[in-house]
Amino acid sequence: MSKASTKPPSGTRDFLPADIARRRYVVSVIETVYQGSGFVPLETPSFENLSTLLGKYGDEGDQLVYRLLHRRDALKRALEKDDVSESDLADLGLRYDLTVPLARVVAQYRDLPRFFKRYQIQPVWRADRPGRGRFREFYQCDVDVIGVTTLIAEAEVLGAVAEVLTRLGFEDFTLRLNHRALLRGLIETAGVAPADEQTALVALDKLDKVGPDGVRAELRTRGISDDAAALLLELLVEKASAAKSDDELTEVLGAALRSDAGRAALDQLSELRALLDHTPAKGRYRLSPELARGLGYYTGPIFEISVADLAGSLGGGGRYDDLIGMFGKQQIPAVGCSLGLERILLVMEERGMYPPLRVGPELMLCSLDVEPAALLETANALRQQGLSVEVFPTRSKLGKQLAYADSVGAPFAAILGADEAAAGDVTLKQLASGEQARVALHEAAGWIAARAPDAAP
Amino acid sequence: MSKASTKPPSGTRDFLPADIARRRYVVSVIETVYQGSGFVPLETPSFENLSTLLGKYGDEGDQLVYRLLHRRDALKRALEKDDVSESDLADLGLRYDLTVPLARVVAQYRDLPRFFKRYQIQPVWRADRPGRGRFREFYQCDVDVIGVTTLIAEAEVLGAVAEVLTRLGFEDFTLRLNHRALLRGLIETAGVAPADEQTALVALDKLDKVGPDGVRAELRTRGISDDAAALLLELLVEKASAAKSDDELTEVLGAALRSDAGRAALDQLSELRALLDHTPAKGRYRLSPELARGLGYYTGPIFEISVADLAGSLGGGGRYDDLIGMFGKQQIPAVGCSLGLERILLVMEERGMYPPLRVGPELMLCSLDVEPAALLETANALRQQGLSVEVFPTRSKLGKQLAYADSVGAPFAAILGADEAAAGDVTLKQLASGEQARVALHEAAGWIAARAPDAAP
Repeated sequence: MSKASTKPPSGTRDFLPADIARRRYVVSVIETVYQGSGFVPLETPSFENLSTLLGKYGDEGDQLVYRLLHRRDALKRALEKDDVSESDLADLGLRYDLTVPLARVVAQYRDLPRFFKRYQIQPVWRADRPGRGRFREFYQCDVDVIGVTTLIAEAEVLGAVAEVLTRLGFEDFTLRLNHRALLRGLIETAGVAPADEQTALVALDKLDKVGPDGVRAELRTRGISDDAAALLLELLVEKASAAKSDDELTEVLGAALRSDAGRAALDQLSELRALLDHTPAKGRYRLSPELARGLGYYTGPIFEISVADLAGSLGGGGRYDDLIGMFGKQQIPAVGCSLGLERILLVMEERGMYPPLRVGPELMLCSLDVEPAALLETANALRQQGLSVEVFPTRSKLGKQLAYADSVGAPFAAILGADEAAAGDVTLKQLASGEQARVALHEAAGWIAARAPDAAP
Repeated sequence: MSKASTKPPSGTRDFLPADIARRRYVVSVIETVYQGSGFVPLETPSFENLSTLLGKYGDEGDQLVYRLLHRRDALKRALEKDDVSESDLADLGLRYDLTVPLARVVAQYRDLPRFFKRYQIQPVWRADRPGRGRFREFYQCDVDVIGVTTLIAEAEVLGAVAEVLTRLGFEDFTLRLNHRALLRGLIETAGVAPADEQTALVALDKLDKVGPDGVRAELRTRGISDDAAALLLELLVEKASAAKSDDELTEVLGAALRSDAGRAALDQLSELRALLDHTPAKGRYRLSPELARGLGYYTGPIFEISVADLAGSLGGGGRYDDLIGMFGKQQIPAVGCSLGLERILLVMEERGMYPPLRVGPELMLCSLDVEPAALLETANALRQQGLSVEVFPTRSKLGKQLAYADSVGAPFAAILGADEAAAGDVTLKQLASGEQARVALHEAAGWIAARAPDAAP
């Protein structure tokens, strides 16, 4: 039999213990801040009915949804059809984000809190082309406020993500702020026909990747006049870079706008900026009229988190007041933000932002001429003291056992010889310093705690 | 547009905050014990190449693997074929367990520790018929020891799962022990032809569900003689229930066995039982010659964890010395055990075994005639003290705000009026007792800590 590849599938990764130590460190900071901000946890299934997922993300999003192939009779029936298509072969798909499942949950359970502040940290899947910091399986860390129409919701969400990044040690991130109605107003002002508005949004969403000239070319391809395209890019890009402050940019855009809804959106953003000055997001935001956000469901303020050394974003979000109504009888307002775990890890790795994190056990239990039963008995006694203990499982020279302890990152070793075993003692050794002492078994945890180099992962 | 169902797909569940509090409590006990026993964490992708998954679990297992439908061009090409079959339509599948991905990982990464003790707590997916405690998406909590041929590995694994169950408050679980070679020896002794051995194993695996008569019927259907079936069930079931102790049963089976390999396996089990007496599994195990375990990859001792009030098991495992060799150049010995999170939760729920777990925020920040900016500023100050704070986000009567705080499970409320805001104070109230005091904002956490009813989730 030929051996199959043992690599993980393209766009996915195995997380070995050292990877997990870093991931858990970041997730624990995120959870601590989210919980501290009054958000409660939710988890949803990995797959959803396709009817739940499709039609929410825009066409490009829908095409990236992984579908689960029908099985047995359902598959047989599907394949008997004359002209089999994709939609005959599946009715379940892997979740594409955490927002649409949340909207379904809010529509389903009538007894959730009226103001449901939920956080959710789970993987999502997209059949996208893998790239730097872009995977087919990746974790999102979402906070959303359901049921609140006022900008307190936006401020709470942005305050929480700003606090997360600050606690992780980021000192240079920017919360880019925009508003879908402002964007629509500016598109209208530029002379793009209302029917082409969505087209213009999709083209603008690629600005980060392809630059102004790329957007100009895409707008032309999609049938938008060069004049309108030029005016649009002037409004969104040139004026924004020329303005010395958000206040100045607000004034410039307000003067140019030929849309009441656009001006109202601009006012909302001013109000939001004032609120943010009373949250951990103070000094961390910037008005960004060119920000489009790809997903179809946003209706109000939108945001995205940038750092200089990453082309994509660390996360983003916005208000989506119409999404929950697509599932239930009631329109319920909602706003949220998602942090991308893999992007955060990538930047932290490159910048060396992690504290020291222990990976292996605290203590390697080595032995000399001792029966397995005595070894297990001693391991159990050490574990009952709260120590993390690995048992070196074969007979070997002591030097080999100690070298192994060191190689797996254990800061301490315990040595059990026939002598120690008979006396109820154990010899402890700190590997880095070489310090060594024979102590009564029940005193082991105390000896180690007095010398512990760092906290458990 | 007609509204789609908002229920989660059949066999899956949404976990609301109270569910998650219980799940996290159990997972944290499991992780603490696993880490304490020297196991380090691993996580693998949700989907694997089908070539990795298939052919490891037996036919019944393979049929339960969820497959990811090909996309775009790959799908188009597949559908152009004359006689499209399941295998044309997918080459990726959702993981079915955590053992096969571990085997792939061990074959892939050459620099893992020589004795790799890993734990892994992740969901797996099986397209099975949903039932009591049986889902299509469910969590397994695995510990495995790689690279150890001796029974210390079995003892460490069983000791860890016994410690988990003990710490969770289970006082009545049984680790049922068997050995694939003993089972084969008994099947041979009963007169079943070697070619029918696998068939007999699959039938025996249903003993729990269908009883001895059901197994007898299935064996007959599968062409095994009534005499052999009767002798097999006598050896596996009747003798086991008649024996007063594992030692007596060992003697009886040893006398009946006509297989050297079977007798060697029986000796191994005696040795294992002696080791277990020096671990937390002491007094928790029982020899169970009828235990078959469905999965195809086991080669040595096998085990399953039973409690009286659950027809299925809380978990199980065994030695699988040939699985890693199916992926790599080297045969590497391995033994592991998996705890089923959903089964544990189900029994704990039914028996009321959970400690009190807080679900909502610690503190609801209510307000009277205060601007949103001041509210956010105060929330931030309280959060910086380490409190979990939700802001009541709209203007309402105080009684309504306090009732809401109570309804989401917050044990404390803070009240911010214009007076307090001006003075840098806040009024705190313990909802259960009604105790109330106005304190300086920076003293809030201290006041609450002195009255905190229970730990955070």
